[in-house]
Amino acid sequence: MDLYSYFRSSASFRVRIALALKGLAYDYKPVHLVKSEQLKPPYAALSATGLVPLLVDDGHAIGQSLAIIEYLDETHPQPPLLPVDALGRARVRGLALDIACEIHPLDNLRVLRYLVRELGVSEEAKDTWYRHWVETGLAAVEAQLAGDARTGRFCHGDSPTLADCVLVPQIFNAQRYDCRLDAVPTVMRVFGACMQLPAFVDSQPDRCPDAA
Amino acid sequence: MDLYSYFRSSASFRVRIALALKGLAYDYKPVHLVKSEQLKPPYAALSATGLVPLLVDDGHAIGQSLAIIEYLDETHPQPPLLPVDALGRARVRGLALDIACEIHPLDNLRVLRYLVRELGVSEEAKDTWYRHWVETGLAAVEAQLAGDARTGRFCHGDSPTLADCVLVPQIFNAQRYDCRLDAVPTVMRVFGACMQLPAFVDSQPDRCPDAA
Repeated sequence: MDLYSYFRSSASFRVRIALALKGLAYDYKPVHLVKSEQLKPPYAALSATGLVPLLVDDGHAIGQSLAIIEYLDETHPQPPLLPVDALGRARVRGLALDIACEIHPLDNLRVLRYLVRELGVSEEAKDTWYRHWVETGLAAVEAQLAGDARTGRFCHGDSPTLADCVLVPQIFNAQRYDCRLDAVPTVMRVFGACMQLPAFVDSQPDRCPDAA
Repeated sequence: MDLYSYFRSSASFRVRIALALKGLAYDYKPVHLVKSEQLKPPYAALSATGLVPLLVDDGHAIGQSLAIIEYLDETHPQPPLLPVDALGRARVRGLALDIACEIHPLDNLRVLRYLVRELGVSEEAKDTWYRHWVETGLAAVEAQLAGDARTGRFCHGDSPTLADCVLVPQIFNAQRYDCRLDAVPTVMRVFGACMQLPAFVDSQPDRCPDAA
């Protein structure tokens, strides 16, 4: 398998964690987002969206980090990244989507660029925007984790799931932008538990081949 | 089942379509987003995120439209909303996420409000922002639909899937904001095929009990 990734892309980071949790080997193919390599050949010919990550498995290109992780879970079921029960699966997917849909898209590089270049937003207002969506979104995740007996050592039970694969990269971003995290103690406890596992530690941005 | 919905919420619209495709009856519970009912009791006690839709099945609350649709597909498998093969499932989920993560979050009511109220963006610039993300995102969907033999009458093959449940509400939004759609002929052909089915027609905003 080939994974097209950018070290700082948190969507790529999610997939790196899932591959590592499953012990799957892959070739790391860097795509430099700040240099806009995702919009130029050869990557543009491979990806219709111009986004990373992209997994190529046996010649088939698969986009969107959550779809990739579900694909990996279906094709390499051990260890599972989703619970067996439908309600548990819905909870894990819901937590993952609460980050992947409600926080991350608003703080994407291309969105931040639009704010600055097209709307003339100041750097300070851009950073406030960033923190607003992170802090609002993580408060909603905290409320769900803190108020549910299904939360264990990790987001759901005592082994990592899709939800943890999505949570950890978001916390890396939050820390990079100095977001307030003292209001989300359960989130941070789970983050700490994840960061004791090599699959999470070894997948972090500064361990990537393309890290600056 | 109870579905907490707002007639104009396109995420709610996705779930209404899925419920209709599966022929599942439910109680429609309106939550008026413009009046901020999602942030006040009684809804705030039910939803940790303050977002719609929310499905309550046998006392269990499930959030996030894509997680709800996957849950419905697992608990009520007929007709299926995902293909049987892992690559096909990844394609359908990827298309759904290309809309749910790359377009919709940027054009959400709360985001548009932030642009206007916090950043002082003009109405005109806000509408340009809206159209930019719709048109950019739909171009990526078009490229995938037009260039893949798996596209059929619908996004994937000849029966509706999760991808169609997400595509159709996005086109409703695009039309409401006068986005350019002549550049996405395959998207619009699929949209037209969907809108020949009662499940899509009967779920549209102006057929909802809370339609203005």
